[in-house]
Amino acid sequence: MKAARYHDRGDIRIEEVPEPVVAPGTVGIAVAFCGICGTDLHEYLDGPIFVPPHGHPHPISGEAAPLTLGHEMSGTVYALGEGVDDLEIGDSVVVEPYIVRDDVDTSAANDSYHLSPDMNFIGLGGRGGGLSEKIVVQRRWVHPVGDLPLDEAALIEPLAVGYHAFQRSGGQRGDVALITGAGPIGLLTAAVLRAEGITVIISEPSPLRRQKALETGVAQHVLDPTSQDVVAEVLALTGGVGADISFEATSVQPALDTLVEATRPRGVIVVVSIWGHRGELDVQKLVLKELDLRGTIAYVNSHPATIALAREGKVDLKPFITGVIGLDELVDAGFDTLIHRNETAVKILVDPRR
Amino acid sequence: MKAARYHDRGDIRIEEVPEPVVAPGTVGIAVAFCGICGTDLHEYLDGPIFVPPHGHPHPISGEAAPLTLGHEMSGTVYALGEGVDDLEIGDSVVVEPYIVRDDVDTSAANDSYHLSPDMNFIGLGGRGGGLSEKIVVQRRWVHPVGDLPLDEAALIEPLAVGYHAFQRSGGQRGDVALITGAGPIGLLTAAVLRAEGITVIISEPSPLRRQKALETGVAQHVLDPTSQDVVAEVLALTGGVGADISFEATSVQPALDTLVEATRPRGVIVVVSIWGHRGELDVQKLVLKELDLRGTIAYVNSHPATIALAREGKVDLKPFITGVIGLDELVDAGFDTLIHRNETAVKILVDPRR
Repeated sequence: MKAARYHDRGDIRIEEVPEPVVAPGTVGIAVAFCGICGTDLHEYLDGPIFVPPHGHPHPISGEAAPLTLGHEMSGTVYALGEGVDDLEIGDSVVVEPYIVRDDVDTSAANDSYHLSPDMNFIGLGGRGGGLSEKIVVQRRWVHPVGDLPLDEAALIEPLAVGYHAFQRSGGQRGDVALITGAGPIGLLTAAVLRAEGITVIISEPSPLRRQKALETGVAQHVLDPTSQDVVAEVLALTGGVGADISFEATSVQPALDTLVEATRPRGVIVVVSIWGHRGELDVQKLVLKELDLRGTIAYVNSHPATIALAREGKVDLKPFITGVIGLDELVDAGFDTLIHRNETAVKILVDPRR
Repeated sequence: MKAARYHDRGDIRIEEVPEPVVAPGTVGIAVAFCGICGTDLHEYLDGPIFVPPHGHPHPISGEAAPLTLGHEMSGTVYALGEGVDDLEIGDSVVVEPYIVRDDVDTSAANDSYHLSPDMNFIGLGGRGGGLSEKIVVQRRWVHPVGDLPLDEAALIEPLAVGYHAFQRSGGQRGDVALITGAGPIGLLTAAVLRAEGITVIISEPSPLRRQKALETGVAQHVLDPTSQDVVAEVLALTGGVGADISFEATSVQPALDTLVEATRPRGVIVVVSIWGHRGELDVQKLVLKELDLRGTIAYVNSHPATIALAREGKVDLKPFITGVIGLDELVDAGFDTLIHRNETAVKILVDPRR
């Protein structure tokens, strides 16, 4: 079968690989759609980061580059491994793409299996990937999505990132949230917040992204940090108090500084972006305002609630799909568009059946 | 009466000032002891910071330098203003030294009156100070301490800082805490944590301060960051997991970096120190470990529980009193000792009756 394989920085190849084996306890999934994630771009431009480099196998998967990419996939069950009796052939499913040690408790009782030692992701650290025709995944990580269309279902993974970020924030209905950055994660976090009854303000320099935030209804207010005083605007919108919760989705220093200023005393700032460099922090302000700066990574036990948001129509994922391409177009039409013309693209899906 | 008055940086004078007037709703307190706080030293060396400079009156108190200093005071009630009927002449009391706007809800229902606009402290922003013979304070800010000795009672204020820091951390009985810095706030925070059944590790470069932390029993383990790998030691002491909660009490960059490394995934780092400069932060680690970095300032509704800890013997404040001086010795024997020989001194009390 065909698969997009990461060999090294700048070197992703569409290759013929053997079909995966459906072992006991696993589910065979024919991939319908797989989104291209910012993390995939980072691996391509600056990696290997999560991908174990050639000759350095990952301690859990035992695999190293070249590896199949893709962790935002939806698909249809085509085979059930021995002992899997709660899914049917033909079910629509998505994958929670974790690689964790066998001794980690991955039940819903554990709210931090995603922080366990050596954790990595299917589609980055081994165990196949969504940028291929088929994938076999342990039952634990397969979530049925019912009648949710499979293209939308491919966005469940990044939506779960937003859902977990919302959970980390402790946000409540009626709160006002400020988000810096209207890239895919900023927008999908906003979508969750709106679904939870939270007013959303987004600060984003790109006019096209601001427009997308308004069009999709995920933001009530958008601000341009290049021409507006974001802190003053947020204070004006919140009766001088500041945002109750805020989300840093840019990994840019001025954005973090803005949130420290624009979040109310005792407010929560959640960092959902991946920083490749040390940041600066006005520690004095953190102290005097008793701010709470929280990291959030990926998701944990988040998929069922996230899928419900989409199935119940509380989040409409359609407007965030800005392109569908075939596997052969991955680098040229996918990565290059996201890298060089990323203002117009939100989420590009790859359909390996094309 | 005599009072220590802050005129400007490096200029504190013991002067004769008029006795305060006991207005309705206030309590007249004959000061027994008043501690010298790190904040007082900052005002002396680098200020005015909290003190409103000459010609720039504070928006709530309406006062400016010269002002009476001292906010860690205990004393005896000598007069009760009209309407105050729940205290008796002769009662031992301490002061929660807040200056807040009249329209702020200062009831126990409000957990953030200390974060209200223009908040300042009695003994820094006006309304008299503990470094004088008498002070008159609104009933709301006066807390009876029963039979707690008055010298120990003068340490209730900094102990309340530690108590509030503990509350901000969400620490639970059985947790392991790491504290950087065994100055007065580090030690008193440790004392609260021990009283709450939390194991305490302190990292502190000064041998004398490490010894004090062990002698007083507030730390089970002390580490020397100049000769030991604090992160490795904490991991070894916690089965490879890291500290559950941690407290930054130094305002030094390497200490914050150490806490980011040595605190477990999903752990809480509380910054209790006052930073005069921007800090750096490994934001990536904050994200990947889902750390929670929280500021804490002073106290809010913390005094009753803090007083109970001392009265019930769960915290022994005696060992932290390392000197008692008269008002006239304030600068020479007080400030100079704390500035130049601060390894041996924890808390120096001023007794204005001397």
